[in-house]
Amino acid sequence: MAPAAVTNGAPQSAQDVSLTTSSLEQKIEALPVKNGSAKGTAVPTQSPEYQELDASKLTFHRTTSPRPVPDEATAHAGSETICTDHMITATWKASTGWSAPELKPYGPLSLMPTASVLHYATECFEGMKVYRGHDGRLRLFRPDLNAARMLMSSLRISLPSFPPRELERLLHALLAIDGPRWLPRDRQGSFLYIRPTMIGTQPQLGVQAPSEAMLFIICTFMPRMDAPPGGMRLHTSPEDMVRAWVGGFGYAKVGANYGPSLAATAEARKRGYGQVLWLYGPEQLCTEAGASNFFVLWRSKEDPNRVELLTAPLDDRLILDGVTRRSVLGLARERLAGQLEVVERRYSIDEVTQAHAEGRLIESFAAGTAFFVCPVSHIHHRGSDIPISMGDTGKGGDFTLKLKGWMHDIMYGNEQHEWGVLIEEEKQ
Amino acid sequence: MAPAAVTNGAPQSAQDVSLTTSSLEQKIEALPVKNGSAKGTAVPTQSPEYQELDASKLTFHRTTSPRPVPDEATAHAGSETICTDHMITATWKASTGWSAPELKPYGPLSLMPTASVLHYATECFEGMKVYRGHDGRLRLFRPDLNAARMLMSSLRISLPSFPPRELERLLHALLAIDGPRWLPRDRQGSFLYIRPTMIGTQPQLGVQAPSEAMLFIICTFMPRMDAPPGGMRLHTSPEDMVRAWVGGFGYAKVGANYGPSLAATAEARKRGYGQVLWLYGPEQLCTEAGASNFFVLWRSKEDPNRVELLTAPLDDRLILDGVTRRSVLGLARERLAGQLEVVERRYSIDEVTQAHAEGRLIESFAAGTAFFVCPVSHIHHRGSDIPISMGDTGKGGDFTLKLKGWMHDIMYGNEQHEWGVLIEEEKQ
Repeated sequence: MAPAAVTNGAPQSAQDVSLTTSSLEQKIEALPVKNGSAKGTAVPTQSPEYQELDASKLTFHRTTSPRPVPDEATAHAGSETICTDHMITATWKASTGWSAPELKPYGPLSLMPTASVLHYATECFEGMKVYRGHDGRLRLFRPDLNAARMLMSSLRISLPSFPPRELERLLHALLAIDGPRWLPRDRQGSFLYIRPTMIGTQPQLGVQAPSEAMLFIICTFMPRMDAPPGGMRLHTSPEDMVRAWVGGFGYAKVGANYGPSLAATAEARKRGYGQVLWLYGPEQLCTEAGASNFFVLWRSKEDPNRVELLTAPLDDRLILDGVTRRSVLGLARERLAGQLEVVERRYSIDEVTQAHAEGRLIESFAAGTAFFVCPVSHIHHRGSDIPISMGDTGKGGDFTLKLKGWMHDIMYGNEQHEWGVLIEEEKQ
Repeated sequence: MAPAAVTNGAPQSAQDVSLTTSSLEQKIEALPVKNGSAKGTAVPTQSPEYQELDASKLTFHRTTSPRPVPDEATAHAGSETICTDHMITATWKASTGWSAPELKPYGPLSLMPTASVLHYATECFEGMKVYRGHDGRLRLFRPDLNAARMLMSSLRISLPSFPPRELERLLHALLAIDGPRWLPRDRQGSFLYIRPTMIGTQPQLGVQAPSEAMLFIICTFMPRMDAPPGGMRLHTSPEDMVRAWVGGFGYAKVGANYGPSLAATAEARKRGYGQVLWLYGPEQLCTEAGASNFFVLWRSKEDPNRVELLTAPLDDRLILDGVTRRSVLGLARERLAGQLEVVERRYSIDEVTQAHAEGRLIESFAAGTAFFVCPVSHIHHRGSDIPISMGDTGKGGDFTLKLKGWMHDIMYGNEQHEWGVLIEEEKQ
């Protein structure tokens, strides 16, 4: 059975209501464009009193007691994520829309025990990084993609719409202030992690879309995870656990994709593996590695002279449309044309096993914001092991390191590229 | 394709690690029994310093400003759920275990923006009611089942273990104090809703099981939903949306089952339907009605003299093992033997449509704590309508009302039954 058939008995045309996942995208497309910004600037059906999220209304309440900035090792020593001095919050009500966003000292949120997010997982987020370039400048990497995805995730989980461009502006505002002190010019080649988050806050236990919500943006330290000693070791998913399914929400960055997968990840780690390689369906299709996209490089079975960079397709809606994934594929198509072919299609763990057995498996890596481009050295599947080359240096295969290097150069300003978006920092 | 095959290519025996959903149940079974209480009393692998949840350690911090108790209409007038004067909280750390639980004034929770629950949906809950009997006494209904399910949900979503019996004791403690004032003796035939909730509170953005958590129990007003005018109207689920899937977590009461379904429910409500009837797989199997279990009564196709009370089975793990479901089936088997046969099996919406067309469809209802036993009058599926009899009274079919009546009598003390558990209330 093809996974796409799981939800679908009758043809799509038999559906007489616009009560579908695809209708969410149509809603996003239908949002009008204002002020030359990206789509999604205003919701046409709102009342005249409805206020749209507007970064130009940002108010500033600065901390009077800035905390000492730890070095990276200290920042990661405890079980608590260290955040920068400030955060940005904005609240939303269905009746009145968005409040003026506030930049204020980082600190706890107050939520009623009946808040929607605590019961019904009405929550979504983004993961981004800000990079201190080798030229001393501060950059985001393709923040427009994160902002657009956050809007998609928000609508999927019944949280409010907002203009993605305004979210980008808020990121710039927070980083302009916290960037210089928390990622100083002498930490070139370092990054901070940014977590825009939206939660349903309505204090109501009814199982329904919340009529109140909060957007918050925090900026934190996060460990480097792109070069685990010996490479990333994957364990395939349990036979009776599935991460995401056709007709579900695996493509959206909502909390509901994460909590349920933690048990399998914990068990895999106990056994010495870093992440779970999530398989899908009776064909055991490869989907994601932990919370990252997954890639293999192999020589084609049909033509051993053809090298393929293979990853799961987006159209099953099982996997996240990763910014790193999209960028890696773009660079491969542009800069490795002639050396390899990018293939986005369904493929099974058995195909990977067979490629290994026939000596056709060349490299593998996981890609995502947290793990960046992380070489995979080992896959354990149902009692068998698939070792994968980490190249001559032991740090990853040639193609993996080449792609990783190009990405790094764009992120850290060694290469001037439209994907690297400069932050105008406040003078210290 | 049978739904059970979705996750399963190789036979179960090929799985060489205990990294499965079923292993969670084995863990629950393995928990030792202490003090004669239910299984799950202590976690054997914990350090000697580890403290188990212990209701006998409950501390009391009573409100000095009790709020006025609204009448039911006032309580449901706003968009905020009204809670009673107190709540119980207990916190957990992986290193030290459970704190002494506290009974304290109802009020907001303080959570760091990095708290696990806000990002990864590490949350689960229970829904229960406390009933003011026609004899003036206060009763819970089978609270042991809710407590056991809460433990199962907690482990599924990587939250801590606890002895279910201690959760029951905490319920008694809260209701002993808030019951007399918030559900007074003259409100016979009324109820309050109880929401035990567990959330991951560790302030850490890593995608991993939280090392800190909080249990809280709140007690609220909730509207009566068991007799909507004209009966419950259902709209079948969108073709490209699935609520739960084999290998997923549809059987656990975790937040991740709710948020993703809100969009379809909102769309169905706009169209005049109360809930979504969630279908599964290419066969379009009937699973749940909204967040309730779903039942049909029909005359068998094979033998028109045989009446069947049909509902989806538990073994696919798609649906919640509802306390109301279990009780309704138990009463039907015990008290309607000879009149009908209880059948738990997969069945499709096409079978329901066919039964309607052939005049075999007798009644339908949804059952759950919130909706109690709620007659279904109408199902809309792909442009066609299935009307269902609401009986001579217009309040539900004969079997539906009979089952509902028996349940009511046990809940409100008209019938003395082991399922009704008395609360010892404080003297006012």
